[in-house]
Amino acid sequence: MTTLSGLGEVRQVIRVAIAGGSGYTGGELLRLLLSHPGAEITHVTSQRLAGKFVTKAHPNLRKQTSLKFIDIRGLGQCDTLFLCLPQGESMINIDRFRGLASSIIDLSSDFRVSDCKLFARYYKEQHKAPHLLKEFVYGIPELHREEMKNAHLISSAGCNATATILALHPLYRNALVESNRTVVEAKVGSSEGGNRESPGSHHPERSGSVRSYRPTHHRHTAEMIQELGDTVSFSATSIEMVRGVLATCHVFLNRNVNEKDIWKIYRDAYGSEPFIRIVKERDGIHRYPEPKLLIGSNYCDIGFERDPDSNRVVVLSAIDNLMKGAAGQAVQAFNIMHGFDETTALAFPGLHPI
Amino acid sequence: MTTLSGLGEVRQVIRVAIAGGSGYTGGELLRLLLSHPGAEITHVTSQRLAGKFVTKAHPNLRKQTSLKFIDIRGLGQCDTLFLCLPQGESMINIDRFRGLASSIIDLSSDFRVSDCKLFARYYKEQHKAPHLLKEFVYGIPELHREEMKNAHLISSAGCNATATILALHPLYRNALVESNRTVVEAKVGSSEGGNRESPGSHHPERSGSVRSYRPTHHRHTAEMIQELGDTVSFSATSIEMVRGVLATCHVFLNRNVNEKDIWKIYRDAYGSEPFIRIVKERDGIHRYPEPKLLIGSNYCDIGFERDPDSNRVVVLSAIDNLMKGAAGQAVQAFNIMHGFDETTALAFPGLHPI
Amino acid sequence: MTTLSGLGEVRQVIRVAIAGGSGYTGGELLRLLLSHPGAEITHVTSQRLAGKFVTKAHPNLRKQTSLKFIDIRGLGQCDTLFLCLPQGESMINIDRFRGLASSIIDLSSDFRVSDCKLFARYYKEQHKAPHLLKEFVYGIPELHREEMKNAHLISSAGCNATATILALHPLYRNALVESNRTVVEAKVGSSEGGNRESPGSHHPERSGSVRSYRPTHHRHTAEMIQELGDTVSFSATSIEMVRGVLATCHVFLNRNVNEKDIWKIYRDAYGSEPFIRIVKERDGIHRYPEPKLLIGSNYCDIGFERDPDSNRVVVLSAIDNLMKGAAGQAVQAFNIMHGFDETTALAFPGLHPI
Amino acid sequence: MTTLSGLGEVRQVIRVAIAGGSGYTGGELLRLLLSHPGAEITHVTSQRLAGKFVTKAHPNLRKQTSLKFIDIRGLGQCDTLFLCLPQGESMINIDRFRGLASSIIDLSSDFRVSDCKLFARYYKEQHKAPHLLKEFVYGIPELHREEMKNAHLISSAGCNATATILALHPLYRNALVESNRTVVEAKVGSSEGGNRESPGSHHPERSGSVRSYRPTHHRHTAEMIQELGDTVSFSATSIEMVRGVLATCHVFLNRNVNEKDIWKIYRDAYGSEPFIRIVKERDGIHRYPEPKLLIGSNYCDIGFERDPDSNRVVVLSAIDNLMKGAAGQAVQAFNIMHGFDETTALAFPGLHPI
Repeated sequence: MTTLSGLGEVRQVIRVAIAGGSGYTGGELLRLLLSHPGAEITHVTSQRLAGKFVTKAHPNLRKQTSLKFIDIRGLGQCDTLFLCLPQGESMINIDRFRGLASSIIDLSSDFRVSDCKLFARYYKEQHKAPHLLKEFVYGIPELHREEMKNAHLISSAGCNATATILALHPLYRNALVESNRTVVEAKVGSSEGGNRESPGSHHPERSGSVRSYRPTHHRHTAEMIQELGDTVSFSATSIEMVRGVLATCHVFLNRNVNEKDIWKIYRDAYGSEPFIRIVKERDGIHRYPEPKLLIGSNYCDIGFERDPDSNRVVVLSAIDNLMKGAAGQAVQAFNIMHGFDETTALAFPGLHPI
Repeated sequence: MTTLSGLGEVRQVIRVAIAGGSGYTGGELLRLLLSHPGAEITHVTSQRLAGKFVTKAHPNLRKQTSLKFIDIRGLGQCDTLFLCLPQGESMINIDRFRGLASSIIDLSSDFRVSDCKLFARYYKEQHKAPHLLKEFVYGIPELHREEMKNAHLISSAGCNATATILALHPLYRNALVESNRTVVEAKVGSSEGGNRESPGSHHPERSGSVRSYRPTHHRHTAEMIQELGDTVSFSATSIEMVRGVLATCHVFLNRNVNEKDIWKIYRDAYGSEPFIRIVKERDGIHRYPEPKLLIGSNYCDIGFERDPDSNRVVVLSAIDNLMKGAAGQAVQAFNIMHGFDETTALAFPGLHPI
Repeated sequence: MTTLSGLGEVRQVIRVAIAGGSGYTGGELLRLLLSHPGAEITHVTSQRLAGKFVTKAHPNLRKQTSLKFIDIRGLGQCDTLFLCLPQGESMINIDRFRGLASSIIDLSSDFRVSDCKLFARYYKEQHKAPHLLKEFVYGIPELHREEMKNAHLISSAGCNATATILALHPLYRNALVESNRTVVEAKVGSSEGGNRESPGSHHPERSGSVRSYRPTHHRHTAEMIQELGDTVSFSATSIEMVRGVLATCHVFLNRNVNEKDIWKIYRDAYGSEPFIRIVKERDGIHRYPEPKLLIGSNYCDIGFERDPDSNRVVVLSAIDNLMKGAAGQAVQAFNIMHGFDETTALAFPGLHPI
Repeated sequence: MTTLSGLGEVRQVIRVAIAGGSGYTGGELLRLLLSHPGAEITHVTSQRLAGKFVTKAHPNLRKQTSLKFIDIRGLGQCDTLFLCLPQGESMINIDRFRGLASSIIDLSSDFRVSDCKLFARYYKEQHKAPHLLKEFVYGIPELHREEMKNAHLISSAGCNATATILALHPLYRNALVESNRTVVEAKVGSSEGGNRESPGSHHPERSGSVRSYRPTHHRHTAEMIQELGDTVSFSATSIEMVRGVLATCHVFLNRNVNEKDIWKIYRDAYGSEPFIRIVKERDGIHRYPEPKLLIGSNYCDIGFERDPDSNRVVVLSAIDNLMKGAAGQAVQAFNIMHGFDETTALAFPGLHPI
């Protein structure tokens, strides 16, 4: 870590590296960190593209950087190491990575679930580094900001989990929810599947599809159970969209709470959050959260509608899965961890129309 | 009604007319009836396009027909009159229409709900022809085939209601469902909104959107309550798609039923149905119902997945909203009513890829 | 070949087989031939899926057929053999195939170009069966109908070539075109690339893309040169679309011809063609050919606009690449070859909206 | 104009206003200017939405601003006035606007064509302020940067014109082009049509369409003639896309120039331009310019391919029509006019995947 004197104040520059930087999450991390005044990217690794310019994988960064990928074996010392490796790689190599960097932010799912048994139930394997599970801070700043300030190990949260947990946490925290009845259905885009082609991602098949790709037992359910303290019946449906998640959460209230009360609960929970907006308008075409308005931004938009016919409230939550659902939230955690303004490098508001 | 001798057998030709033929449902009816060997289209009305060729509204029918729209006041006698009028028009003018035709198939929502109070609760108005409500047969052949054979008045079913009811009826009929807990979320295309532009249908706004357009109190819920005998928590989300509905139905079972039992229930219910396919494959990319495979076809594809973590079963149901959800199902009812083979004019299987 | 007595007349039933039936073109051939009253499908081959139901590859055909794929070595005798094999396979194995069937319709590009040198220039290899090149009839019925009636070998035409040649042939035949100046740009869908995934067909990359995939030297140019007798500057751009081609043809006239004259030329050329429609309306939103209206149909829609600022006429031509650009046109040729009504099994008009 | 002392240097803050700020171009201007450290937005007008928050029209700006629209009659003094009014409004009201602001950047088409007759030929009306035509600087900085530095009146360029002119100018300036033979075909998105719905923008009609909306005599042709000094045969086709233009330019060279020479010409022309990238790769899936990679960015990506079969070179040029084709280019001009770094507020690089 070096210090930088300039613009009237002493600022630090954090040396960061990205392991596994050729995927979509790695690309977004690169885009964000290149514009971060307090970060200097020292290394980006890729097995497949070692030796090539990062713009080969991330053509939007042409003219932004002349960085090249290196082999992961060439990773040197840095301050913060971001891990964007395939599932299972982080937990196997975590000791080596800890030797390279004073802090680690893992964007894989390896360290999200702190309970071994819950992990094993959803991931169908035994955890390889169970001793570290409790040391990782779960990566949703709105729930774990204080822990992040002194953290050395942060595990970012799953995209569907982020959307669902942020949508439901205020109601659960206020003990308003009938246990064991919540149903969540997430509509998700194709970038959730990563950057490698497969028969299911072939354009003529995937285009326009409404694919019930995980009707039950989705892995992100484990995180929801952990953070909400209740079971959630979760389903994920892939739709025609590249980026974005809309989680439609059907919650059944255990006592009579009207719309105004719910407004208050959400305002109390999120009123001062920089990246959460409550979106609920009476008219117009943007009455509720809409993922396409969030493409490229770190916002989570949350809205709700009280069902006049029952004790149901439908809570709607939208994010960009690669931003608030991955790289953006990781940079938000990085900012908190290092004392930067939480919105640094995350100011892009999204586009309209798009 | 005239009779036609030909091809070795005596066949009847039914004179049909379409009131309100310039919309999307009217266009599909026209397409189907033009290829129906037992139907002769005598009139098609449109207020907006009276005097113009029907191909002005339905350009896919170029070179198929030289029919022109007439003003609705010019409607003459016919055997079967299809009503594709805006909501409210059928019930106001039903007496006049009954004087023109010996049988009526109404594709609007006016006569779907046979209980006055249930109608008023969801449509926010008093019914204008309540004495006729019990005379209309509800238009899902799989549930009401026998009544249709002698019916003179048929009300076709709502598209979301059709997908949901066909998905759930076997489980409800077998009394396997925990009452009052079912949650259904339908993903729907833009053609559900009809053929007139609006701020919300403007392409830059609607394209790629995931719009929570009716999170609660959707009108089609009334039909679900009527046919299933239980409340359903229904939400509809508009996604990037022109035609199609995928209903994802979260049902909670009241006793332990395994996957094999559920297979049997659906096979018993639908095994001999010409337009229902049970779609549930172990692998591949088409494991579950997919609306895009049904575009232009009258199929309803139904699949399901047992949740290993709870007593939930997720039932998936796909249709083309303009076919099995509107014009196709109406022609299926027409075939039953007049003794034609039920699949007449409905043989198109859908396309792949699309 | 057997004969069938029924419905008052004696009809023949042609035994057909499909070599390479698991691809998109094979799937469309299957769909069409299953509904063809004069065809009986004896075999469908697939190396990858031998032993599996054809519905594994073509899920739209569920409940339509219980055919299974066989290995190509199991191909037996038949009347007409359709070849849908990868480029190069037909010309290598043509002798064996001729021993199996009295007539062959090849849907690959192997026998489209009858001039060896032209073939070598565009395909970068020597032809493996040059002695047969002149025996194959080029598969556009509107240009070669008479030859097809007695043909035993037909090579279907390329999709982009079909759209372009049908658009331009009337002007060229009337010697109205400035030689060597025509520019054609085709907008094409992703199904042109076949059914196997690739980095370029991965949905997050391909979705919404406008990819200049072949700005120059496209192979289909060879067919255009052959059929039009002039060079054409052709470019193909992949856009967000699964099926469809729109060829925008910029032609420079060598003498002053007004719009009315051009109308007459196209009406003379195509007025009695069952699958060509001249689409040119003064107002409305469907003034010109639109590929999406043709999905699943065998039509080629052609329109044009005279440039008031120069001697240019822009001719627009739309087809479904898998239908009039492949399987549909092959069945049209099959119908001509065997004396069936040319529209048999090809009556589907397309959908609106879609 | 006020001065601001801060961050170690004295900087000016320009008071800007936007007339006609509820449209898509106005929305993008707002997004950019809100993040511009040297601009302060004083007023934004809208007739339709006066009194409402700007976020009603531009929901992506929620939490970014609390600005409200005012009626245009309430426009006060400012330094720079951006005009985003419907075609014809600027030239009628230009005198009043000049009284309000010391400099004007007009984003409409009123002052793009400096020749009265050329204007009249393409716009079918007489110009209302012909005396000012020569005073407006045409808004492409890469061609008119020097004039912009001292300009008080700038007319931004048409989106299709920008893409085309930037693609072709280097070849024309080097006198390499056969006169009168260039054909340009632009593929454009639906946001080009503005933010008001119409029958043609209705989602079921517009979705997936390939609409030949202006095959000849497009108004932007006038700008191409003006800036290139040659006629261009231009056509525009609307495709499935919200933002973006890809101009495919077919140029015929008047002497033998190889690929390396062309590289040099483009590098000489644009090598030091901050917003132009030459995109031409040998392999991979991003070999040529791709509009979707530019969404939200101010880049113009340019590539080319030499036709080995003729003297044609195909030049490809991509922009975001609302950015480099409208608001982004206007801010670039604003930066030049006021001496800001040319990239201020325009640093967003675009996203991948998208």
